[in-house]
Amino acid sequence: MKTETRRFFGGAAIALLLAASPAVAASPAQTSAEPDISNFLLDNGMEVVVIPDHRAPIVTHMVWYKVGSADEPPGKSGIAHFFEHLMFKGTTKHKAGEFGARIAEIGGSENAFTTDDYTAYHQTVPPEALASMMDYEADRMRNLILTDAVIGPERDVVLEERRSRIENNPEALLSEEVDATLYQNHPYRVPVIGWMQEMEKLNREDAVAFYDRYYAPNNAILIVAGDVDAKDVRALAEKTYGQVPRGPDLPARVRPQEPEQNTARTVTLTDPRVSTPSFSKSWLVPSYHTAEPGEAEALDLLSEILGGGLRSRIYQSLVVKNGVASSAGAYFNGTKLDVASFTVYGAPRGEAKLDEVQAAIDKEIDGIVRNGVGEKELEAAKNRFLRSMIFARDNQSSMANIYGTSLATGSTVADIKEWPERIKKVTTDEIRKVAAKYLSVNQSVTAYLLPSEPVQN
Amino acid sequence: MKTETRRFFGGAAIALLLAASPAVAASPAQTSAEPDISNFLLDNGMEVVVIPDHRAPIVTHMVWYKVGSADEPPGKSGIAHFFEHLMFKGTTKHKAGEFGARIAEIGGSENAFTTDDYTAYHQTVPPEALASMMDYEADRMRNLILTDAVIGPERDVVLEERRSRIENNPEALLSEEVDATLYQNHPYRVPVIGWMQEMEKLNREDAVAFYDRYYAPNNAILIVAGDVDAKDVRALAEKTYGQVPRGPDLPARVRPQEPEQNTARTVTLTDPRVSTPSFSKSWLVPSYHTAEPGEAEALDLLSEILGGGLRSRIYQSLVVKNGVASSAGAYFNGTKLDVASFTVYGAPRGEAKLDEVQAAIDKEIDGIVRNGVGEKELEAAKNRFLRSMIFARDNQSSMANIYGTSLATGSTVADIKEWPERIKKVTTDEIRKVAAKYLSVNQSVTAYLLPSEPVQN
Repeated sequence: MKTETRRFFGGAAIALLLAASPAVAASPAQTSAEPDISNFLLDNGMEVVVIPDHRAPIVTHMVWYKVGSADEPPGKSGIAHFFEHLMFKGTTKHKAGEFGARIAEIGGSENAFTTDDYTAYHQTVPPEALASMMDYEADRMRNLILTDAVIGPERDVVLEERRSRIENNPEALLSEEVDATLYQNHPYRVPVIGWMQEMEKLNREDAVAFYDRYYAPNNAILIVAGDVDAKDVRALAEKTYGQVPRGPDLPARVRPQEPEQNTARTVTLTDPRVSTPSFSKSWLVPSYHTAEPGEAEALDLLSEILGGGLRSRIYQSLVVKNGVASSAGAYFNGTKLDVASFTVYGAPRGEAKLDEVQAAIDKEIDGIVRNGVGEKELEAAKNRFLRSMIFARDNQSSMANIYGTSLATGSTVADIKEWPERIKKVTTDEIRKVAAKYLSVNQSVTAYLLPSEPVQN
Repeated sequence: MKTETRRFFGGAAIALLLAASPAVAASPAQTSAEPDISNFLLDNGMEVVVIPDHRAPIVTHMVWYKVGSADEPPGKSGIAHFFEHLMFKGTTKHKAGEFGARIAEIGGSENAFTTDDYTAYHQTVPPEALASMMDYEADRMRNLILTDAVIGPERDVVLEERRSRIENNPEALLSEEVDATLYQNHPYRVPVIGWMQEMEKLNREDAVAFYDRYYAPNNAILIVAGDVDAKDVRALAEKTYGQVPRGPDLPARVRPQEPEQNTARTVTLTDPRVSTPSFSKSWLVPSYHTAEPGEAEALDLLSEILGGGLRSRIYQSLVVKNGVASSAGAYFNGTKLDVASFTVYGAPRGEAKLDEVQAAIDKEIDGIVRNGVGEKELEAAKNRFLRSMIFARDNQSSMANIYGTSLATGSTVADIKEWPERIKKVTTDEIRKVAAKYLSVNQSVTAYLLPSEPVQN
């Protein structure tokens, strides 16, 4: 039940993210051909992916809805995430809390998350509980009881969530205004959790309209990974999800797109709660779904070489060699339905100044734009990416996440399978080209998070 | 047929604007009680305002539609302005060009403009031609022929208009990105002329939907100013507009509103076509329609005292006394349905640097926030405002514009009549308070227009 914005700002958050899962988080589809993955449709249009993994008696069950905050009507920001909360309320068959209690009872775990592009629900349980999970999940796909008595108190919960997670957090506040600046027209500008003044007005009518439009088998993807086989999953899916009637035929997910951008922008938050200054700089770049062939893969490798970890140019230069930065790096989240972003970030160490850190990072970017990257450097980055898939494959829920995220953002199972080959094909020249093409100062947004003292403008 | 964005950037545009009409352009409703102004509704819901002025045998006839670019559906930017163009095409009764030819023949003039909040059509003609003008205008309110053969070529015209007026104009490009940064959620962020990639896709279906929704008597205001009397205008209006059937009942004009803003932002355009640097700094402030009582009037007087003309603090200090600026000033456009903006601007003279100009303007704002304004200074500003009404009353089309603009942005005829009294009541303390409340650096957007050489970041 978290709003997983998948946009991060500032050194600490990034360092944590990268430490937790080096490349899994940075790349969309890190798996080689997995021979026995099944992918089929139920009669009512629900897509199913089965990823067998028999090493342990565990199964990950996920349902991904192809709707996120970027699909919300104008003025109704937060409804996608608010609705995710409502999915944990009572249905005509089960009272609120029963599903969760059942999972706890069998020692399982569950969660849910909402992003710009999708909303997902998942449980990890012993295989014998899968039928029951599907039964509960298919039930809440259509049978929720959405009364004012349910909606009012839960709206208070999400408002409080916004207060505690955003309003009380300078990094989060800044991140929201960076997005609202970086995206001039696309709804990615609007925070997943919603703007306070719009969240306050979300009501039963909004919730019912959203549910009826988006929560239907033909707008959902079922991913089952673990100690199961495709035949059994298909049979169970037909008995549960297969019984849910098809929903409305939705138009293609066409959102307002970005105009050409011509300016360098800055967004500065000065706050007494900030102890050390930091900055980030972001550019709009293509996503895996919108890119010309090979460009998203090149951006992924560029982020890895430039600032993807301890071996990266930025880290080696700023943290290890010069010691001007306490943290610094780069990231690209290309797994988006529409335009994505590429970001570099850094924070000074000791007596170093923020603008030294910024200049040093600019220099590293400039170096790649002018001189490209080395063949060996690229090989090493590719190998780290390809190895990361091995790790991903070793983790049932990572695999389920990769498939869910990719399919919900316009990629296909074939795209995921071919990803390693496409990564292998990227040339040093392609890396230099995407850096030169997209990382121009005249299309960037630089964010500054500054302590209140001394006064900075 | 111009897109009158009513948002201006940079010294030159402003100086020109203010020179042309000192306070008319800066204030929304500058007229005292005008005893014989009539205001009534036709049976089909069309509002009528008659402003008699018998000094010359001329009449200004305007129809204002309560729809502008901020009412457009997401992804359809530019449709309001594009539609304004289509209104000059043929109807089932008159072929394209006939209306305009008729106006030219009798020595009249005509124009039309689209803003965020409204779209207006007007003609100035001899009084005996008024009936004919109403006939033509009522005809095109409902009888336009909207075929692909009409729409395709006219779309090329507005695309070319965007290329020549925006793409070829660094000031205009910067102004668009400033709006897209200043407004984080409100559709005022979207340019009136539209984003190129969305304009290219506007089609017949969009035009027909827009026409059917918004072009109807119950969404229009008729303003007739000049050598006429209310009884005759009413009779003519009933015979022409009165015959047009009522359109759909539209919901209240509720657009997405701004979230709380916490950051200082900059937007920089560096362009070889720019010869001298300039800057502007804008804040979101209440409009006449959204303000607490007295605040919009106080903002109007603040803009006048701070930088409204040759007597203003900024002009006297920066241009006359120190000579650091070639142009500098402030403006407030409070005549908006939703949130408005307040802007200061300046450009250096001779050897002076842009940041000196900026610092000098900041100092003037800070002076008012700390010490307020003087009683005599406020009296003088009020007198300039009140005098401007006399000038406005002297000009038929100014009066028609004031009524149209005000009524189309949520004000009433009574608001316009009471405006001079409300201006007279503003205190020095209220001026200081709005400056302190709204002109905070942590909620501002500063725009820089810079020459390409020397390189500036």
